Amino acid sequence: MKIALAQINQTVGDFPKNAEKICSYIERARRRNADLVVFPELSVTGYPPKDFLDVPAFIDENLRTLDTIASRVYDISAIVGFVDRNKRRHGKFVHNAAAFIQDHKIVSVHHKSLLPTYDVFDECRYFEPAHTISPVKFMDSILGISICEDIWNDEEFWPRPLYEIDPIENLISYGANVMINISSSPFTVEKHDKIRLRMLIHDAMKYKVPFIYVNQVGGNDDLVFDGNSVVINAQGRLIAQAASFEEDLMVVDIENPAVQIQPRTYSPIETVHMALIAGLRDYVIKCGFKKVVIGLSGGIDSAVTAALAVEALDNENVVGVLMPSRFSSQGSVDDAVKLSQNLGIAYKVIPIQDVFETYQKTLQTEFKGIPFDSTEENLQARIRGNILMALSNKYGYLVLTTGNKSELAVGYCTLYGDMSGGFALISDVPKTMVYELARYINREKEIIPLNSIVKPPSAELKPNQFDQDSLPPYDVLDGILKAYVEDARGIDEIIRIGFDEKVVREIIRKVNRNEYKRRQAAPGIKVTSKAFGLGRRMPIAHNFMCQ
Amino acid sequence: MKIALAQINQTVGDFPKNAEKICSYIERARRRNADLVVFPELSVTGYPPKDFLDVPAFIDENLRTLDTIASRVYDISAIVGFVDRNKRRHGKFVHNAAAFIQDHKIVSVHHKSLLPTYDVFDECRYFEPAHTISPVKFMDSILGISICEDIWNDEEFWPRPLYEIDPIENLISYGANVMINISSSPFTVEKHDKIRLRMLIHDAMKYKVPFIYVNQVGGNDDLVFDGNSVVINAQGRLIAQAASFEEDLMVVDIENPAVQIQPRTYSPIETVHMALIAGLRDYVIKCGFKKVVIGLSGGIDSAVTAALAVEALDNENVVGVLMPSRFSSQGSVDDAVKLSQNLGIAYKVIPIQDVFETYQKTLQTEFKGIPFDSTEENLQARIRGNILMALSNKYGYLVLTTGNKSELAVGYCTLYGDMSGGFALISDVPKTMVYELARYINREKEIIPLNSIVKPPSAELKPNQFDQDSLPPYDVLDGILKAYVEDARGIDEIIRIGFDEKVVREIIRKVNRNEYKRRQAAPGIKVTSKAFGLGRRMPIAHNFMCQ
Repeated sequence: MKIALAQINQTVGDFPKNAEKICSYIERARRRNADLVVFPELSVTGYPPKDFLDVPAFIDENLRTLDTIASRVYDISAIVGFVDRNKRRHGKFVHNAAAFIQDHKIVSVHHKSLLPTYDVFDECRYFEPAHTISPVKFMDSILGISICEDIWNDEEFWPRPLYEIDPIENLISYGANVMINISSSPFTVEKHDKIRLRMLIHDAMKYKVPFIYVNQVGGNDDLVFDGNSVVINAQGRLIAQAASFEEDLMVVDIENPAVQIQPRTYSPIETVHMALIAGLRDYVIKCGFKKVVIGLSGGIDSAVTAALAVEALDNENVVGVLMPSRFSSQGSVDDAVKLSQNLGIAYKVIPIQDVFETYQKTLQTEFKGIPFDSTEENLQARIRGNILMALSNKYGYLVLTTGNKSELAVGYCTLYGDMSGGFALISDVPKTMVYELARYINREKEIIPLNSIVKPPSAELKPNQFDQDSLPPYDVLDGILKAYVEDARGIDEIIRIGFDEKVVREIIRKVNRNEYKRRQAAPGIKVTSKAFGLGRRMPIAHNFMCQ
Repeated sequence: MKIALAQINQTVGDFPKNAEKICSYIERARRRNADLVVFPELSVTGYPPKDFLDVPAFIDENLRTLDTIASRVYDISAIVGFVDRNKRRHGKFVHNAAAFIQDHKIVSVHHKSLLPTYDVFDECRYFEPAHTISPVKFMDSILGISICEDIWNDEEFWPRPLYEIDPIENLISYGANVMINISSSPFTVEKHDKIRLRMLIHDAMKYKVPFIYVNQVGGNDDLVFDGNSVVINAQGRLIAQAASFEEDLMVVDIENPAVQIQPRTYSPIETVHMALIAGLRDYVIKCGFKKVVIGLSGGIDSAVTAALAVEALDNENVVGVLMPSRFSSQGSVDDAVKLSQNLGIAYKVIPIQDVFETYQKTLQTEFKGIPFDSTEENLQARIRGNILMALSNKYGYLVLTTGNKSELAVGYCTLYGDMSGGFALISDVPKTMVYELARYINREKEIIPLNSIVKPPSAELKPNQFDQDSLPPYDVLDGILKAYVEDARGIDEIIRIGFDEKVVREIIRKVNRNEYKRRQAAPGIKVTSKAFGLGRRMPIAHNFMCQ
C-alpha cells in the first residue's frame, strides 16, 4: 500500500484556498500512484479555528468545502480533517473529525476522542468527544484512524496519563493493523525528537503495527507547526520523514519500505531559528502584510529580530529605524548602522530628542520639582513606539517588537513603548537563548555586530543604565523563570534548586505583578513549553506570591 | 433548620485574608444561631484562580487554608468551596470541590460534575469532574450539595442540555431533600432575573425541594459577580434574596419560612450601572491602586466613565485630564470642564499642540509630500495616551480608558492612543447603552452635561470629523454587532434580520480585521452575553469573512 503524507500549510477560514491546495495535493498524490493520501487535522478549516467554531456559518462552509473536495477524489482514497456536526441531543455542537473518502464519497467519519484542554489548547471548549471508535477496511489492511491527541495517552509511555481511555488500544483491539494519525501538533523546542518521535516508535513497537503520522506545517498566530510527518514501520523503525517547517508530499510504500533511516536531527537552536522564521513569514503573509519595520537600538534583541526578519522576508521587505536620544551611545548607533549594512536593509534615522524635550516642556508645570524617574524613561520608549507606528500607519508596514521573554516576564519593558507593534517575534525566547540565536546567526560570518553581543545590555533611557542594575545576571534570571513559568514550581522548590531566596522572591513578585503588561502584549511565537499569552492565563488582580 | 448564606467577595490567592473573612462569617452566622453556613464556590482561593490551579504551591496553600478554617468550625456546620486534589491515577490533578465541615473536621467532600468550558469559563482546563455524587445527612434533612454549573443542565428547562448527566436529578434520586448550590456565577445583563431565578424556581417546583443558592459577589478582573443569593422553598416560591453586588449574610429558617417575597427587580441599565461600579472598585482595590486618571474629551464615553469612577471611588480619587488640540472645539473643552465641576473632581489641562507639531517636524523629511491621514490622527491620540501614562507613572494613578464596545468592535480606536490604560471600564458597553447609562446617571440632575449627550459624536482628530462619516448610525451598528458578536450569526442571517447587505459585510469585515487591536486591549467589565477578551477567542491571521 502506497500512502501519501500531505504535509500542508493552511490558513484559518480561507476555505477556497484551503480546498484548492487539498485538491492539488490529491492530484499530485494520484500522479505518484499513491493508494491513499492523508491530510492533517482540520485541514479544511485550518488549525486552530478558535471561536469561529461557534459560528454556524463557519461550520456550514467547512462542510460544503469538504463535499467539494470529496467530489474530486477518484482513483485514490483520501483522509481529510474537518469539523463534523454532533448529531446527538446533548453536548457540544461539533466534532473534530477525519473523513475517509473514496470514489467521490465520504465513506466513513472518525471523531477525535481525546480533546487537549491545557496550555494553548481549548478543544473541550468546542468539541464533543467521539462516542464510537471504528477501524476501516482498506485494500488488505485495516486502518486505525486517529486524530492528534488520541495517540498521546499511552499508559506505558506517560508516567500519568491525562485520560482514562486509550483510543489507540481500542483501535488495535478492534483489529486495526495500520495506524494513521492526523495532527496539528505545534512546535516547541525539542518536542519532536525527544517526545513525539520516541512516542511513535514506542507505540509501533508495542503494537507491532506501522504508524503513519501526518502533521500540519506553518504558522498560525502564536503557533508554528513543524511538520516532521513520519512513517514508523511495524518493527518500530523510522522509514520516512517529511520536511521540517515546509510543505511536503511524501509517498511511502509501507509494505515494501526503504531501509530504516536516521532521523534528521537539528540542534535545539537550529529548530528555534527555523520556527521563528516560518512563524514570522506566515504571520506577515496571512495577515496581508508585505514589509516590516523594526526599531534598531544597537542591542542584541533588535539585531536578532532584524536578522530573522530578513531570513523570513528578504532584505527589501525589512526597514530599520534608529531613534537615538541624548542617552544613546555613539557605539549603539554605530552597531545599528553596521547591522543594517550587514543585512542589506534600508534604515532611517529619526532622533527623538526634540519630541522628548517638548513633552518635558508640556509637562513641566505638572511635574515641577519632581526628579527624572521611570516616567521620563518610559516617555522616550513611547516616543519611539509612536514613530514606528506612524511609519506603520503611513506605509502599511507591520511593526515588529523586539522584546525577549525574560524582559516580558519581569516587566522590564514599556507598555505602548517598546511593546508597540503587531508581532512580538522573540517574546518567547529567553535572553540567554537570544544570545545563542545571535551566535547561530553569525555561524558563518558576522551578521550581528560582535559588539552588540559582547557589550553589557542597556536600555539607554538614562545615563549609565545597565540591565544588571535592576535585574540579576540573565543566566540566573532565566533559571528562575524557567522554574517558575515553565515548570510551575513554588518559591520553596526554586530555592532548593540553588537560587538565592531574596532574588527568587523578588523575581516571582515581578512576574506576578506584571501580568497587566503581558495582557496587552502583541502575540509572538511559542517556542518553549510555556509561553506567555494564550497558553498561560493568569489573573491580574490577585495576591498570590505578590509580596 | 437555619441556614446562613454567606455571600462574600474574595481576592484570588489572598489566602490569609480569604480565610479571615470566612472565619468571621462563620462566627457571625454562629452568633445568629444558624445551624449551617454556606460559602460560595472556590471561596478559599477566590474565583477564577485561572492558571494558578496549575501551580502545586497554590493548591497546597489552599488545602492548608481549608484546614485552618475547619479548625474554627464548632457549634455550627459549614460548606466551603475549595480546590481538592484528584487522587486517581488519571486525569486532571484537581477537583472543584465543596467541603462539608462539622466539629473542626471535614466530614465529606463533594466534587463538581459539570465543568463549564465556553465563553469566559475554562474549567475542563483544570478540573477533573466528579466521579461520585453523594448526598449528606444533616439534622433531619438530606442535603444535596452541588457546585454552580451542576444546576445548569435541566432537560426540561434547557432546549438542548450541554451535558449528558444531570447531577441534580442524581442527588434527588439518592434521597436529597434540601438542595444547596454554591456558585461563582458572573453577571451579565438580565441573567439573574431572566435565567437564573427562573431556573431555580423551575427546579424547586419540579423536585418539590427547597433550593439554597449561594453566589459569590464582587469583581475579579473582567468578571463581576452579582451575588443575588436566594432561597426558594419546596413550593417554588422565592423566600429570601441577598443583596445585589454587595457582601451579605442572610440567615433563613427553611422549615419556618417567612412568606413569599417579590424578587427585587432592577431595570437592565440599573444592573449594568451597579456592575460597572462594583467591578471598577474591586479592580482598583485588588490591584493596589487608589486613584484613577481619565482623559476627558467632552464626549459621552469619557463623561460616563468619569461619572462611574466617581461613584466607585469618590471624587477625590478621580483625576480628569483635558488634552485639547487645534481640532478640539471650544464646546468640547467647556463640556469637559463642566463635567469635572459637576462631579467635583480635580482636572488638569495639558494641550498637545506643541508635542504634535514637534512630531510633525521630526517626521517631515520622512513624510514630505504625503497628505495628512489617519497617521496624524493616531499620533494625536497617542500623545494623549502618553500624557496619561506619564501621570500614571509619576503619581501611581491607574489610567482608565474610555472606549465603548461598538468602537472596539470595528477598530474605531487607536492602539497605544485612546486604548492606553490599565482598565477599559465600558469596553463591553455598546454605544447605544452608553447613552442609556448617561441618561440614567442624569436621572436626578444633570451630571453629564446635556451637550455631551446630544451633540453628534466626534473623535475631533481632524476638522469636521464625525463618527457617522465612517460608521453607520449607532443603532444600526449595534444591531449588527449584537447579531454577529453576541449571537454568532452569519452574514446571510444578519441580512435576513433586515440590515443592508453592504453595511453588514463592511461591519463584519471590520470586526474580523481588527482582532489585532482587541488582543492588545486592556481588560474591561463583561456586561453582555459575549464580551471581547477572554470570552471571545479569535485568530488574528485568518481569512473568514474578511472580504
